[in-house]
Amino acid sequence: MQITAKQIAEILNGSISGNPDAIITGPSKIEDGKPGTITFLANPKYKDYIYTTEASVVLVNKDFEPESAIQPTLIKVDNVYASLAILMENFNSGISIPSGVASTAIIDSTARLGDHAHIDDHVIIKPYVTIGHNARIYGQVFIGDRVQIGNDVTIYPGVKIYHNCVIGDRVIIHANSVIGSDGFGFAKTEDGQYKKIPQTGNVVIENDVEIGSNTVIDRASIGSTTIGQGAKLDNLIQIAHNVQIGHGAAIAAQSGIAGSSTVGRDCIIGGQVGVVGHIQIADGVMIQAQSGVASSVKEVGSKLYGYPAINYQSYLKSYAYFRKLPDMASQLRYLESRVQQLENGKKD
Amino acid sequence: MQITAKQIAEILNGSISGNPDAIITGPSKIEDGKPGTITFLANPKYKDYIYTTEASVVLVNKDFEPESAIQPTLIKVDNVYASLAILMENFNSGISIPSGVASTAIIDSTARLGDHAHIDDHVIIKPYVTIGHNARIYGQVFIGDRVQIGNDVTIYPGVKIYHNCVIGDRVIIHANSVIGSDGFGFAKTEDGQYKKIPQTGNVVIENDVEIGSNTVIDRASIGSTTIGQGAKLDNLIQIAHNVQIGHGAAIAAQSGIAGSSTVGRDCIIGGQVGVVGHIQIADGVMIQAQSGVASSVKEVGSKLYGYPAINYQSYLKSYAYFRKLPDMASQLRYLESRVQQLENGKKD
Amino acid sequence: MQITAKQIAEILNGSISGNPDAIITGPSKIEDGKPGTITFLANPKYKDYIYTTEASVVLVNKDFEPESAIQPTLIKVDNVYASLAILMENFNSGISIPSGVASTAIIDSTARLGDHAHIDDHVIIKPYVTIGHNARIYGQVFIGDRVQIGNDVTIYPGVKIYHNCVIGDRVIIHANSVIGSDGFGFAKTEDGQYKKIPQTGNVVIENDVEIGSNTVIDRASIGSTTIGQGAKLDNLIQIAHNVQIGHGAAIAAQSGIAGSSTVGRDCIIGGQVGVVGHIQIADGVMIQAQSGVASSVKEVGSKLYGYPAINYQSYLKSYAYFRKLPDMASQLRYLESRVQQLENGKKD
Repeated sequence: MQITAKQIAEILNGSISGNPDAIITGPSKIEDGKPGTITFLANPKYKDYIYTTEASVVLVNKDFEPESAIQPTLIKVDNVYASLAILMENFNSGISIPSGVASTAIIDSTARLGDHAHIDDHVIIKPYVTIGHNARIYGQVFIGDRVQIGNDVTIYPGVKIYHNCVIGDRVIIHANSVIGSDGFGFAKTEDGQYKKIPQTGNVVIENDVEIGSNTVIDRASIGSTTIGQGAKLDNLIQIAHNVQIGHGAAIAAQSGIAGSSTVGRDCIIGGQVGVVGHIQIADGVMIQAQSGVASSVKEVGSKLYGYPAINYQSYLKSYAYFRKLPDMASQLRYLESRVQQLENGKKD
Repeated sequence: MQITAKQIAEILNGSISGNPDAIITGPSKIEDGKPGTITFLANPKYKDYIYTTEASVVLVNKDFEPESAIQPTLIKVDNVYASLAILMENFNSGISIPSGVASTAIIDSTARLGDHAHIDDHVIIKPYVTIGHNARIYGQVFIGDRVQIGNDVTIYPGVKIYHNCVIGDRVIIHANSVIGSDGFGFAKTEDGQYKKIPQTGNVVIENDVEIGSNTVIDRASIGSTTIGQGAKLDNLIQIAHNVQIGHGAAIAAQSGIAGSSTVGRDCIIGGQVGVVGHIQIADGVMIQAQSGVASSVKEVGSKLYGYPAINYQSYLKSYAYFRKLPDMASQLRYLESRVQQLENGKKD
Repeated sequence: MQITAKQIAEILNGSISGNPDAIITGPSKIEDGKPGTITFLANPKYKDYIYTTEASVVLVNKDFEPESAIQPTLIKVDNVYASLAILMENFNSGISIPSGVASTAIIDSTARLGDHAHIDDHVIIKPYVTIGHNARIYGQVFIGDRVQIGNDVTIYPGVKIYHNCVIGDRVIIHANSVIGSDGFGFAKTEDGQYKKIPQTGNVVIENDVEIGSNTVIDRASIGSTTIGQGAKLDNLIQIAHNVQIGHGAAIAAQSGIAGSSTVGRDCIIGGQVGVVGHIQIADGVMIQAQSGVASSVKEVGSKLYGYPAINYQSYLKSYAYFRKLPDMASQLRYLESRVQQLENGKKD
């Protein structure tokens, strides 16, 4: 956050005394204000600090007049506490969005928007889309035909949702993620060319899921790719067609789950993990970052590591010996020579 | 797919008898209809099933009147079979797109569009772009100056194509992928700073290629980065500058090919594979998921695994012993003690 | 690059003699012109080559008349050298952008743009954004509230920048990257559900940084995620919340740095590397592609490899023995049998 004294004064309808270009990066207390911060003087008890504070800007009541020269820029307002509240709300707020539908949004006449929908500029909403109450759909989002979106959903800029997908309540999807693109399905024909297998299913994202930026969730070939209730997906994740992610699973950035695999409830998957297709992972399994899971995991709550992934402790133990392999090899050579010597001795 | 009885009635110009909010997720036969499905009654032979079916919605002819109380919502239409055809086409269709050029698309006057071009809202097409027949360019796509696009191409929402790239016939590019961004090329100057090396080449995507979502293909520094005819690339893939991908190669999600490397025809590359720069991979090579290929692969059709990648079977065999390393180490210690004992015995 | 003779003639205000549809993919010299190239004739000394050149198009002065039949298409212009300069500039230029603000850009009235700002179509700029001089902001970019952007910045199509982020001078960000999305922070509540931890910080990108396509840099939970001056990030990279990247660091594609970790100055990180959270990596460290760094690296300039990463040479040495593990195991078995024999012999 960086804002000038002048911009703050505009937000608060205040007047400036001092440098209007002072840059503010955060708040501070008047008694230990740092340069680049804004503070306030409301309680007369703190009055003396205004002459010593290093804060760059101080909010004061409009009738305040300093008794001697002061360093900071003053912003004079009607009511310091009220202004402070406005400022904090303004600083802590996220990205602003129109109340209602922006004039540049393209919304098909057959689409249904719930109450208090916020639709930002350059959004595209195709026929027969349904969106619940209190939606926040940011700029440049694309929502394909017949997509169903629940209540209290936030979709950040640039997200693209293909046709027929279903998104539950309170779901959050971050910028430029793609929901429902075609699964990677091709059949080799007799002449050695790939022929596309139609991907006719959809993606279902259940309630309370959060999805990071630039993540991709492919539509099922038939049926649904499903992200279970309350699951949390980080950035740049690949979820292939027909995958089922269990309730409350957490998947860190850049992991990929290949086609038709199932991840159990409350699993915790580290970053850059790969899971091959067509396997089942039991509930509560923890997978260390960068592991490659190559077969089904049946033990609930087990912990995996490695490439291919095995038991976490076993991998660490084996890897410790991996590091000693040159020593082990020379020890083996040395033993060999000693056994040789013993054998020669015996022959003598 | 989720749609209400009321929405279906609107599509078919039919009238509703029953609950207009019944939600439909797919079709069924009347004799084994499940809740949440739509079915139809056309042949009088099946008339009795309408009183027992569990389907939520039944399409009937407009003159149909039930003889007793029935469960499902009825949608009455002029012609059940014709309506069914409309409905199936509507359900199976992808994302709708304007016939012609949407009014909010920004198309430079020097760009040339072929016949039957479909250009969706908020598309940007820069000067001297050429696009062939039957193009489907979805919303929020960006096509840079002098890009040449063939016939029958589908470009999904949010794709960005930099200047001078060339895209063949029947190519499909999924949402938010980037074609032709600058290669990662920098030279260290004497003062230790990186200086950008101009990336003046382009990307050439040959006929019948399909590219997934959020994939990036960088432009060549000089010449072309090329994706060969019929190659299929999944989501979130990185193709660096000056890479050549052979005809019919298939690359799974999240793999990356570093600068100036060549992948042969019909290679199959698993997910999350890395290929270092400046190497050649022969035709028909198969690379197991997550492998790291660190040197050229000369043997046609060979199969690789590991990090760095070696022969597939060799890696599996070595990894089996890797898992036994703690046992091997204790066996080694035990042998050591026994040899020691033998040596001591000999001294005796 | 592909352009027709006719398009070139339009750019140069020239007239065509010959095939206007001749397709040009680059320039050549008249004495060794290849089909599909354009060349020029200005110096009469080279006049004879026009009858033998294989170039598809030749730029000539408007008074030039061939003395016999010639192959190439001629484009006649007032001044060959001047036209050549225009053509070269046109060919070598990147993506064109309006001078000033495009009519379809949505710019909040409180935003401040520096001199010579170029704002392309369908850009969205939210309240209190500040952008410096000579900005090039391409189509469909989204800039959230209170973002501060320096001078001479280029932001390619589709980039999304969340609120409060700060971007320095001469920064380049490639298409569809996301700056400032929420960090992946959740706390498990007593009932086993994840509760979102507010991500109230921002991202600071210092001067002279370049960021590739589809890369994600998350905002800090508190404070700033920082990309140090002159650092270069490739495509599809994940930078988690509160990460600090040192000055001049270079990170190749698809690498990920987990939350709160620090990467030193001038580090070089290969592709698909993973760095766990909450560790420090010293200055000048080099990390081999696909490595997984699991603990802090204190030695300046050290070189790492492996999973988890260890000293580069050590990993290579251990891996060489890993490949020989089946041999080592059989050698061990053979030794075992020989020791057994010696032991038996002793008993005799």
